[in-house]
Amino acid sequence: MRRIRLKIMFDGTAYHGWQRQQNGITVQEALETALTKLLKEPVVVHGCSRTDAGVHAREFVLHFDTEAKIPVDKLPIALGTVLPSDIRAVAAKEERADFHARFDALGKTYSYTITRTPVLNVFTRRYAYHYPYALDLSPMREAAELLIGTHDFAAFMAAGSPVKSTVRTIYGLEIRDTGEELKFTVSGNGFLYNMVRIIVGTLLCVGGGKLTPEDVRGLLNSGVRKEAGFTVPPNGLCLEKVFYREEEENE
Amino acid sequence: MRRIRLKIMFDGTAYHGWQRQQNGITVQEALETALTKLLKEPVVVHGCSRTDAGVHAREFVLHFDTEAKIPVDKLPIALGTVLPSDIRAVAAKEERADFHARFDALGKTYSYTITRTPVLNVFTRRYAYHYPYALDLSPMREAAELLIGTHDFAAFMAAGSPVKSTVRTIYGLEIRDTGEELKFTVSGNGFLYNMVRIIVGTLLCVGGGKLTPEDVRGLLNSGVRKEAGFTVPPNGLCLEKVFYREEEENE
Repeated sequence: MRRIRLKIMFDGTAYHGWQRQQNGITVQEALETALTKLLKEPVVVHGCSRTDAGVHAREFVLHFDTEAKIPVDKLPIALGTVLPSDIRAVAAKEERADFHARFDALGKTYSYTITRTPVLNVFTRRYAYHYPYALDLSPMREAAELLIGTHDFAAFMAAGSPVKSTVRTIYGLEIRDTGEELKFTVSGNGFLYNMVRIIVGTLLCVGGGKLTPEDVRGLLNSGVRKEAGFTVPPNGLCLEKVFYREEEENE
Repeated sequence: MRRIRLKIMFDGTAYHGWQRQQNGITVQEALETALTKLLKEPVVVHGCSRTDAGVHAREFVLHFDTEAKIPVDKLPIALGTVLPSDIRAVAAKEERADFHARFDALGKTYSYTITRTPVLNVFTRRYAYHYPYALDLSPMREAAELLIGTHDFAAFMAAGSPVKSTVRTIYGLEIRDTGEELKFTVSGNGFLYNMVRIIVGTLLCVGGGKLTPEDVRGLLNSGVRKEAGFTVPPNGLCLEKVFYREEEENE
């Protein structure tokens, strides 16, 4: 029995998120179907996080156990022949028997992309949120600074999420402006349910003058969800990277 | 009665090409439905070319006549409320009564994009052809040079296309290499059926060593379709620009 770590990328447009469910096809289900077909044995995969419906991943990590003899470096190309075209495996390696894609993850980086052109760009519409309204970037960046560090992010979590602690650490929160697009990049040790999407929605409210950086500071103290901004839609969100302790040594 | 020139962009993935037909939904039909709904009168549109199923356009020009009173500069945004999200109008202006989107077009620029990564990139798969094979760019560029100018492109036309003359002029044919992608940009006064896709397929054969630049020169003389390369799939093709005489003056 070998434990395999697999890096995949997926266009989440057609999926009901990562985790298997009754309501519709998920990335987990598509992957288990493909692996089971390729390896000719039932495969159960464990993902690094539960991405929501419509969210994308440029790098998503999962693990599974297998008795199959296929050389691990052949897996990505071989999987390409059985996976749907919106999911691809990009790297695979054998892992220690107790590696866990979710519990061993030390942190993640997400990006959120907004298109600012007056008219929706049809070529990026699946991967960016069209937001053609005026934005003042200076207070947005000021508010973003305030969110970096270890804070109680209760106000930035979808109401009613069951969780032990709402304290998380954000390592970086950058806003890059290319004129046509605004790209938010957020790294942290963990994220509450909808946290990145509520952070971006809140920063857009700051950019539009509906909230001030001082209001954002207040949110970290009050923890009241309804005082924060709206939840931006899932299509602009993309999991960019998952961090593990041993990553640097082995790759 | 006013004649309106409309610039649109579309993601052609879901469409059976531009021109109305029985077999499936086309861009023309989607546009006529949207305009008829918006202007509350039956609208017939005339496009600058008949793009194939699955082909995209960053700029496609069409014209139509209307009695409706809507200010022409409001059209693009207003159309955004009735068009499907894979078609958008980007500019509109009133034209002289005899302007014709197709017959007045002096030339067009197409791009064709190839992804060269070993694994398909799920985010560009709708807009690029995945071709992960080794390519020698130097003879490809040499062969591309030979195609520039006025030639008989009979060998670069889908067999059996009804056309009076197979002579066309190519103004430019550039191959740009970004490492992950190879982008072909072709400008000309007109293009035969599948001409750009056969040119790109032929240049890929040159890049793979199956044809030489000298073979390409021979194709311009022989005019034999089956001696040229394969027709690359439609998803990598995009109409980038349509040229008109008066464009520079009015915009």
